Parts: sequence; structure tokens; C-alpha cells
Amino acid sequence: MASISLSDPAVRSYLVYSGVLSLKVLAMAFLTAKQRYKKKVFANEEDAKSAKGVVKLNDPDVERVRRAHLNDLENIPAFWILGALYVTTSPSPWLATTLFRVFTASRIVHTIVYAVKPLPQPARALAFMFPMGIMWYMGVTVIMHYASAL
Amino acid sequence: MASISLSDPAVRSYLVYSGVLSLKVLAMAFLTAKQRYKKKVFANEEDAKSAKGVVKLNDPDVERVRRAHLNDLENIPAFWILGALYVTTSPSPWLATTLFRVFTASRIVHTIVYAVKPLPQPARALAFMFPMGIMWYMGVTVIMHYASAL
Amino acid sequence: MASISLSDPAVRSYLVYSGVLSLKVLAMAFLTAKQRYKKKVFANEEDAKSAKGVVKLNDPDVERVRRAHLNDLENIPAFWILGALYVTTSPSPWLATTLFRVFTASRIVHTIVYAVKPLPQPARALAFMFPMGIMWYMGVTVIMHYASAL
Repeated sequence: MASISLSDPAVRSYLVYSGVLSLKVLAMAFLTAKQRYKKKVFANEEDAKSAKGVVKLNDPDVERVRRAHLNDLENIPAFWILGALYVTTSPSPWLATTLFRVFTASRIVHTIVYAVKPLPQPARALAFMFPMGIMWYMGVTVIMHYASAL
Repeated sequence: MASISLSDPAVRSYLVYSGVLSLKVLAMAFLTAKQRYKKKVFANEEDAKSAKGVVKLNDPDVERVRRAHLNDLENIPAFWILGALYVTTSPSPWLATTLFRVFTASRIVHTIVYAVKPLPQPARALAFMFPMGIMWYMGVTVIMHYASAL
Repeated sequence: MASISLSDPAVRSYLVYSGVLSLKVLAMAFLTAKQRYKKKVFANEEDAKSAKGVVKLNDPDVERVRRAHLNDLENIPAFWILGALYVTTSPSPWLATTLFRVFTASRIVHTIVYAVKPLPQPARALAFMFPMGIMWYMGVTVIMHYASAL
């Protein structure tokens, strides 16, 4: 019987980088709020009223941050589950840790080049494809490891 | 070696409140559907046809429920992972249980004041900030606990 | 004390189908990209520039794929957590495996009838309701199992 231990370096690495990525996703709410207050545009009547702004749903600066946020939701929860499944397959701690680090750093860069300081392509495409490739590697590893349960 | 036990009160509390929050998120689909059928507005041709309604993507009542749903997706999956990471740090069962209860109650209040019975601010802002603060507390606790794995 | 074992068939089934569903969600990004390049419509100036296309946020074919993607985000992360909670309640391996298989197959069908080869209702409604019903069954089972921790 395989087992998962909180003293396994791959597990500890998963735990800390999942924590960092969680706070990174949550921080997007503040990045959106910052743009909303700067531009005085809000999505709801009651928000516009309390902040003396207007309701506007297509401000380009706000929408850019919201797209970056949605892109996080499309990718980071998939990492949380795939990373957890992957550490149950007894990966090399060095490889697992490296994948988690590259994933986390790339997703932070993705937000910066998308919503903080927009850069020409392929900056964002690269910051998107590294984490995506890591998740496919982890997913295929998990499916092959447990293929007999399909 | 630390271990996680299904008889630990903090773990059991995490399990039951994560279950409640899951059903709470899923219920948003029915809240959206209720508004769509009431207003007869749908996002797809095939839906409008089968329900004898029209395609309309900017109905304010439907969009309000959809924003509440998206706000759940921005926050509740982050709780699922952060809560799971947090219970591995051997928190006080009393504190953990209290945080999970306040989080769950606040997120339910958030939906009510956003999409069921809209209230003036700061009702929704408060219902948003309590769970957000709880998640940052859990995230910082996790990162400090496993900081050596960074 | 209950325990969770990686040799439990229900757990192994959860692990492999969660992996399959992760890659299924991630594949939606490529389905969106395929539509964007086919229609030459992008959400960002820098993307339109690098692909010699235009910025357009309401292309019906792109938006259809994006709605299918968002619907995945509303449902599949809830499965990841509910499935994990559910296997801690010592379900029958046969029942658990069957639920995970029907869930996964239905969500794949959902995407096909929504965004690959759109079909009249109730095709998509059925592919939505089976997984939804499975998640409510798992959620109620979890809450009843751990009700004393509420």
C-alpha cells in the first residue's frame, strides 16, 4: 500500500505552492477593485452609489483584469487537484518541486504581463503554455498510474 | 511525522462545511435558471427555442445572479484547497471550526444580499471581506508552516 | 478511526476520473483558441496584433465555447471536492466507481453537444442534470455522514 506523508518533500512543496497560488488568485479581487475605484466604474447600482461612480460593464482596463482573473480560475484549481493526484504517484521530489515552482512563477508572470504591465505577445502565451504543459504532464502521469481503475 | 485523521474535529468540520459550500455553489445554477425562465431570456438559440423565450445576454436580473455565481467561483474553490492545507497544520479545533462556520455563513449571506434580496452597500462588502480575511489567515498560516519547502 | 487507502478501488477510481476531468477542462482553452484563430477574433489588442485579427468580444461561436468552459468551472471543481469528501464516507466501490464514470462521461457529452456539435435541447439539459444529480447525492451523503460536526 502506497501512502502519503506530510514529511515527504514533494508533498510539502505541493502544500506551500498551493497556498501561494491560492493567495495569488484571491489577490485578483483587489486588482479588480483597484481598477474599479480608479476608473469609478462598477458592475452594480449599489456599488456605484456607495462609491459615487457609474455602472459600466465594458471598461477596457477593468475587463482586462477580469480576464486575467478568469484565466486563473481556468487553470489554478486544475493545478490544485492535479498536483494533489500527482504527489500520490510517488514522483521524484526534485522533479515535483521543480514543476510546482515553475508553475507558480509562470502563473504570477502571466498576471503581470496580462493585467499589471501588459506586454506584446508572445509574453503571455509563454507564461500560459509552461503551466499548461506541466498540468498535462501531471495529468497523463496520474491517468497512466491509475489506468487499471478506468 | 504529522498525520491527518478523519476523527479529528477540525478535519470533520472541514469535510462537512466543504460539502455545504459545494451544494451552495451548485444551487446557483438553479437560481440562474429561475431568473431565465421568469424573464424568458436565454444564452443559446436552442434554449430559447425549447422554452419559447428569446436570446438576450444582458438582462440585468440574470446578470446579477451570474455575477454572484462567478464571485463564488472566485472564492469557494480557494477555500476548499486552503481549508484542506490549513487542517494539515494542526490548528486548534475550536479555531478551525469557528473559521469554517463564519466562512460558510458569510458566503451564504453574500449570495442573499447580492442576488436574492439585493441590499445597499456595505452589506455585500462585509459578507465578502470576512471570508476573504479568513482565507488570507489560513493561507499565511500554511505558507509559514511549510516555508522551508519554498 | 476511518482511513483512506490508495489501494481502495473507490479512491483509485476517484483519482483517475479526476485526472481525466482535469485534462478535459484544460482542453477547453484549446477549443476556444481554435475558434478564435478560425474567426480571427481576439479579446486583447496584443493578441489581435500578433495573429493579424481583430478585437471582438461578442463572436457567437467563440462565446459558445466560452460558455461551455464556464459551465465546466461551475461544475467540475465541485466534483473534485465532493468526490474526495465522498470517498472518505466508505461508499460501496461499485457505486462510487459508477457515479464517477457517469459523471465523467456526461460532462464530456455536455461539451460535445454544447460547443463541438450543438444539438437541440434537451440534449445539453440531460448531460447537465446527470452530473448535477450525482453531485447532490454525494453532497447529501457527506453532510449526513459528518452532520455531528456541523
